[in-house]
Amino acid sequence: MEPVRRCLTEFSLEAHDLYLNQSVPHLEGPPDPLQFYRDWIGSNKPCIIHNAFNHWPALSRWTPAYLREKVGSKVISVAVTPNGYADAVHRDRFVMPEERQMSFSSVLDVIEGKVEKQGVFYIQKQCSNLLDELPELTADVEPHVSWMSTALGKLPDAVNFWLGEANAITSLHKDHYENLYCVISGEKHFILLPPTDRPFIPYGLYQSAVYTQSDGGDFEVIDQSDTEKVPWIPLDPLDPDLERYPSYRQAQPLHCTVKAGEMLYLPSLWFHHVRQSHGCIAVNFWYDMEYDIKYNYFQLLEALSGATESE
Amino acid sequence: MEPVRRCLTEFSLEAHDLYLNQSVPHLEGPPDPLQFYRDWIGSNKPCIIHNAFNHWPALSRWTPAYLREKVGSKVISVAVTPNGYADAVHRDRFVMPEERQMSFSSVLDVIEGKVEKQGVFYIQKQCSNLLDELPELTADVEPHVSWMSTALGKLPDAVNFWLGEANAITSLHKDHYENLYCVISGEKHFILLPPTDRPFIPYGLYQSAVYTQSDGGDFEVIDQSDTEKVPWIPLDPLDPDLERYPSYRQAQPLHCTVKAGEMLYLPSLWFHHVRQSHGCIAVNFWYDMEYDIKYNYFQLLEALSGATESE
Repeated sequence: MEPVRRCLTEFSLEAHDLYLNQSVPHLEGPPDPLQFYRDWIGSNKPCIIHNAFNHWPALSRWTPAYLREKVGSKVISVAVTPNGYADAVHRDRFVMPEERQMSFSSVLDVIEGKVEKQGVFYIQKQCSNLLDELPELTADVEPHVSWMSTALGKLPDAVNFWLGEANAITSLHKDHYENLYCVISGEKHFILLPPTDRPFIPYGLYQSAVYTQSDGGDFEVIDQSDTEKVPWIPLDPLDPDLERYPSYRQAQPLHCTVKAGEMLYLPSLWFHHVRQSHGCIAVNFWYDMEYDIKYNYFQLLEALSGATESE
Repeated sequence: MEPVRRCLTEFSLEAHDLYLNQSVPHLEGPPDPLQFYRDWIGSNKPCIIHNAFNHWPALSRWTPAYLREKVGSKVISVAVTPNGYADAVHRDRFVMPEERQMSFSSVLDVIEGKVEKQGVFYIQKQCSNLLDELPELTADVEPHVSWMSTALGKLPDAVNFWLGEANAITSLHKDHYENLYCVISGEKHFILLPPTDRPFIPYGLYQSAVYTQSDGGDFEVIDQSDTEKVPWIPLDPLDPDLERYPSYRQAQPLHCTVKAGEMLYLPSLWFHHVRQSHGCIAVNFWYDMEYDIKYNYFQLLEALSGATESE
């Protein structure tokens, strides 16, 4: 297996030399659809786009007061965890958040510090929750990003609304989507790793479980019975355990901050870890990726990474 | 290495299931640049395009009489071989054709059977010979294909003119170009293999040599001294030696015929073998490929195919 491991390492290093950037480039305005397809989607590279949604009323309107007035009484799904980590490896479990139904105004009470609650709160339900749970806010944004829809020849599969506390963290993972991530207020901090770094990223298989807050207020981890084990990344890119996962030394993560009014193009199959400023509001668009030669190649990389993993 | 070989085989089979077509699809007209980029260039799939150059005067004008009148006295490079195979493995050598300088009318004498000569003649010099050696013919075609240039955001690197005998054959190989191949008269027969079939395609390293016709008329194979060995494919897809190259059983070649007035989009890194009807005339456009994630992945496939090859 050693020659194969060498091939994989060379391949990943070559990707960084050949076509990846050292940092995430910024574009000054919304791009031409064909040029965007060719330069970013087709070549599977992230970028930050400025001035792409200056015309959205949300940018000026979405204050806590406005949100309380518009959707304060709406009941929405909130992810609650003891430590900010929803959908992450905790000890030997893959632990999902408690999904709590709360009124929007009571979430804002927590975010604004008007009420003290145990746990970390994050509106992060990724099932087109903006259109489905908060249709009153849809008019303040757009239901799709026109140049992206033209580039891809389709509409987004989901438009998601995100609002959470500073210590709500999204653990390292990848999605099968072309993702446009628009920060409305505050800022998001991304750690990005290209698909070609897959050989250096450890995966494990974990029993799935759910956080549940007991009447006393403590969180318990409750195993989900009758579920298949979940493949997930145990490594925390903020504090990687290099003794345990030495290959990760060869990974070359990109760090970027996306500020209010900016949009991140997060390409399909890129690994990402996300933090945010307290009370950051964002909207993102998920466009289904093409299952073409790039996906096919990535599947090969997955299989080879699995076959050569030492752990 | 066995698990890696299995990964490679599964990967290739999955490509055929996931996104490749069973045959080369036909498009009824010249496509929209963005749609063509997304559906064919980005996904690296061949297609045959009809009605894409109906307006070229070449389609009606390029008769032997017209060519004699326009460029009969021009001296051009012709590849001459004893057997029709230029740039191919012959026994333990990679043998290139004799490059002969001849007047265009004397090539036509051979093609039209007015003169008998030993050997097989093929105008196939791939260095933009249409623009450089036959500028008088350029006005009968176009110097680029506008929707392709728009799609790729660049002009072609080369525009080549092809004219040859029925037994002139181009052996299986791949190019680092997005190729638009336009048949003006007669027809071309292509055998195409996707880059994902690379694990099943044998390569060897061969001493390079050149055919040279002696005064007696026989062809000799003269080694090129001081040249590096050339990696080439020894397998003939018309008559594959499956005893020697058993993996090729798993390859899934596509066969297609491109007729006068039709254009083949032959994607970068696809393996191709080409035959033609006698006197077939064609013009092709080579656009440099993007050295992006797809190329990077193909390089990995090359390295792994090499590392796991049994021969």
